Amino acid sequence: MPESEFDIIERYFSGISASRNEQVLLGPGDDCALLDVPKNKHLVVSTDTLISGVHFPVNAAADVVAHRCLGANLSDLAAMGALPFAFTLALTLPADDEAWLTDFSRTLASLVERYEIPLVGGNLARGELSITMTVMGTLPPGKGLLRSGAQAGDSIYVSGTLGDAGGGLALLNAGAANGGHLAERYFYPLPRLALGQALLELASAAIDISDGLGADLGHICERSGVGAQVNLCDLPISESLASAFPIQQAQALAVGAGDDYELCFTADPALHTQVLDAASAAQTRVTRIGEVVAGERVAFLDESGNPLAFDHAGYQHFNET
Amino acid sequence: MPESEFDIIERYFSGISASRNEQVLLGPGDDCALLDVPKNKHLVVSTDTLISGVHFPVNAAADVVAHRCLGANLSDLAAMGALPFAFTLALTLPADDEAWLTDFSRTLASLVERYEIPLVGGNLARGELSITMTVMGTLPPGKGLLRSGAQAGDSIYVSGTLGDAGGGLALLNAGAANGGHLAERYFYPLPRLALGQALLELASAAIDISDGLGADLGHICERSGVGAQVNLCDLPISESLASAFPIQQAQALAVGAGDDYELCFTADPALHTQVLDAASAAQTRVTRIGEVVAGERVAFLDESGNPLAFDHAGYQHFNET
Repeated sequence: MPESEFDIIERYFSGISASRNEQVLLGPGDDCALLDVPKNKHLVVSTDTLISGVHFPVNAAADVVAHRCLGANLSDLAAMGALPFAFTLALTLPADDEAWLTDFSRTLASLVERYEIPLVGGNLARGELSITMTVMGTLPPGKGLLRSGAQAGDSIYVSGTLGDAGGGLALLNAGAANGGHLAERYFYPLPRLALGQALLELASAAIDISDGLGADLGHICERSGVGAQVNLCDLPISESLASAFPIQQAQALAVGAGDDYELCFTADPALHTQVLDAASAAQTRVTRIGEVVAGERVAFLDESGNPLAFDHAGYQHFNET
Repeated sequence: MPESEFDIIERYFSGISASRNEQVLLGPGDDCALLDVPKNKHLVVSTDTLISGVHFPVNAAADVVAHRCLGANLSDLAAMGALPFAFTLALTLPADDEAWLTDFSRTLASLVERYEIPLVGGNLARGELSITMTVMGTLPPGKGLLRSGAQAGDSIYVSGTLGDAGGGLALLNAGAANGGHLAERYFYPLPRLALGQALLELASAAIDISDGLGADLGHICERSGVGAQVNLCDLPISESLASAFPIQQAQALAVGAGDDYELCFTADPALHTQVLDAASAAQTRVTRIGEVVAGERVAFLDESGNPLAFDHAGYQHFNET
């Protein structure tokens, strides 16, 4: 759709191109955007695709799609401790749905303002609804929270509360009318950008929790060549989740469900007070949930220190399986 | 597919991550890639999506998909005069087709070597086959070929020959077994990177021809606030195109068909010799095809200087319509 592509981009997206950012020398509308990366900064880049029916419900409102898509992408910047710099949007749409485009672009405009990350380029194509964003951020040279720096003896932390988004999705899938606070957590993820930046001098490794604590902490362990022991009773569970699900199921959601976009990170235990201070300055709750150990396994321990096994319905003691 | 996504990326794409590029401080595998943008360079960024059945035939071979996708994206860098820096790949696949992934990743690896542009990050999702790449390039500060700099009196040039890709596609659509050189031009576009860089000090405006000369020169005119007069008989037509189609149809393909990924650019006529020298140094043919004029229309003129109108079947004199 060569003609209408330009018209649509112009009509819906041109106004949100480069809000308040003198680093954008040339925004959308030419062959490329032209950007001035700040002196003495390194560039970080991440790309993520969200597909209708896979990463958001097929009937999801356009504002939910915008929030989940930019939120998930910004969460990768947060997990590196990076400052948002710019992003591109490749939007594939089955049809030119005016109401959808209006809602989507309006929400995107508000998020561009909130996170101070200008939209610098895009593409519009016809097909199944899917959205690919490529986000760029900046870091001081030599800095950056990698997955590979965890060492045995480090403390393991998570931000916020875990399992809420998974609980919300479970409620919606079970036919709940709205799902309340838990569904909000699924629909409107909040990337932990301030916390990531505050941890740059403190954390030894970090990742954002998109696939679930077990899987994502597993990535840290794999890249760092270590294992992890997590105390199940230390996992931060929200009141909303605890009141909607039995505790065993709430904990299973906290371990296995993704989409919370909280940060999981490790730090030398000697830095515990500084970690709490940094989190407080970033106005973000953090909780120590366990310890990095030698080995390669992520173990979840009950109150007696015995390891538990999880399936999608909850956890089991190993000797019960 | 959280588990197999990592396995597939590791198996097929990890080896081509960051070939010969010390500017990649951290390649794929963490939350973000970490890049060292050269000092005193600006960054250019462009994103493009290619969808099966729209931008390439549904039965296109994986190596064709890789060539067309990276070629189309690099062509945007060429049109800015930028040097390739890095790119990300968001791949959406209906199924894990081992043969397809092997061919695609092998071709991509060879293109990464040829164009010296490392793959620094990616995403893999399940859905209709579609590929979004985001390419980054670098430019000296204050440089860059924009669409907006054309002035009345400038000469208009194109690189290579026009209409070949469109002719190849027409032959394939008409049932030709292979389509020969013309189909090759459609399948394996060659981004004019060396020419774009050589024109940085010379061209007043540039664009790559992806939608057709008429449409893309129209974008230069719109952004520059000018019109254009192109002499139909000056359009560079390849021997292959001229022997496969009647001249009127060949010229219509040169004007209206996209996918050639040649450059269209404008330059002060006083620089004509320097333009030819730069093109020669870049080992790329360029042809002067017309002149920028006041106004806003792109006019194609016959040998007597009379304007012609085009439709998909060819051109007509205005007085015949």
